[in-house]
Amino acid sequence: MSARNPAPDPATVQAMVFDIFGTVVDWRASLIREGQHLQQRLGLQADWAAVADAWRAGYQPAMQRVARGELPWTNIDGLHRLILDELLPRFGLASLPEPEREAFNRAWHRLDPWPDARAGLTRLKQRRTIATLSNGNVALLVNMAKRSGLPWDAVLSAEIIGRYKPDLAVYQGAARLLGHAPGQVLMVAAHPSDLRAARAAGLLTAYIPRPDEHGPGGWMESTEGHHFDWVARDLVDLANQLNR
Amino acid sequence: MSARNPAPDPATVQAMVFDIFGTVVDWRASLIREGQHLQQRLGLQADWAAVADAWRAGYQPAMQRVARGELPWTNIDGLHRLILDELLPRFGLASLPEPEREAFNRAWHRLDPWPDARAGLTRLKQRRTIATLSNGNVALLVNMAKRSGLPWDAVLSAEIIGRYKPDLAVYQGAARLLGHAPGQVLMVAAHPSDLRAARAAGLLTAYIPRPDEHGPGGWMESTEGHHFDWVARDLVDLANQLNR
Repeated sequence: MSARNPAPDPATVQAMVFDIFGTVVDWRASLIREGQHLQQRLGLQADWAAVADAWRAGYQPAMQRVARGELPWTNIDGLHRLILDELLPRFGLASLPEPEREAFNRAWHRLDPWPDARAGLTRLKQRRTIATLSNGNVALLVNMAKRSGLPWDAVLSAEIIGRYKPDLAVYQGAARLLGHAPGQVLMVAAHPSDLRAARAAGLLTAYIPRPDEHGPGGWMESTEGHHFDWVARDLVDLANQLNR
Repeated sequence: MSARNPAPDPATVQAMVFDIFGTVVDWRASLIREGQHLQQRLGLQADWAAVADAWRAGYQPAMQRVARGELPWTNIDGLHRLILDELLPRFGLASLPEPEREAFNRAWHRLDPWPDARAGLTRLKQRRTIATLSNGNVALLVNMAKRSGLPWDAVLSAEIIGRYKPDLAVYQGAARLLGHAPGQVLMVAAHPSDLRAARAAGLLTAYIPRPDEHGPGGWMESTEGHHFDWVARDLVDLANQLNR
């Protein structure tokens, strides 16, 4: 991994777009918390960390089924529900009744931000437009932001473009909707593969490692061979680098 | 005109979507102000109220050309520019050079809100999702909101749906993106024709008359034969009615 040295002039950046799951919010700890609430209310027992990991592991394959045309366009609420219905029996949770199942599926609308997220975004927003650019659907992103006070200027989603990241059309479409050239838009993500696609689409890139995304000491996508315009410890550090 | 009596239960309303030009912002006074700035800077003379009215008058016909397929999809920045280029010679402004022309076209990104808008939206947002639903393009709406502190949860636009209001697909698409049934979404507008289409698409409706939209004592669209779920004096009054 390398950050460009010197980094581009921050004044180039007219707008910033953010990956959400893992980059802005801690999906794993939030899903575990939601599972534990379910356990307390309904007396169900399960390894909720394993449920969270299996749910997330089903995400890329489900989007690839849409990209290959095996599934018609299905938003992330729909894909999360398909994955959930498949995994519940494997974790001894087949008896979860329908209204609870749908409510649990919406746990993804209630993910908690990383501790630096709100403060970092608030500072970044002072000088530039900030928008989501997630595979999550619009309603999910709006509900999440409202619950946690994430101060987006715009909620952009793969759902609006009709393709999933890393399709380059998503990144290019976001820049077009925000009224900027791709080279004036900075994509922020914890995942090198997302940033590689953003870079191929002409966007600037900022990498925010989130070593706890898959749990303490958990897996991280390799950064080997990747180049980013900025690397920051978290979103507050990124604001320090860009607003100086 | 009649308001439904009794009005629907405000608890039905999960999300509110707002027309912008005329309903939330005072396009006419703002364009006159922008024209006067141009006059002071460049020494151009024109009847800026007449320029504003002509610019706005070109708006519906331009969108209808897109709807009829005479123009490919063109966003409002593009349509405003087509109209501007056509009207400048009629007002003795043919000499306006290119960079000034493009900057003047973006006056629509800098429209001022009506005096009640920010306070009303801030109160309405406390209990529900609030989103734009304008024919204005996303960048225009984002820039306008950032400049004036309009606290949208989401910026939805005809540009995202690929059709212009009053096409019913725009209203239905907005409800779908926000994750609600049309009957859980309230369209707020100063224009009965917009609300008639929203109602035909299954949305609830709130009418906010803006008697000064076309200038003091100016033209207003007739409300005869129209039925609205709510009628409010302004957005603060609407918040009073819905949040009681």
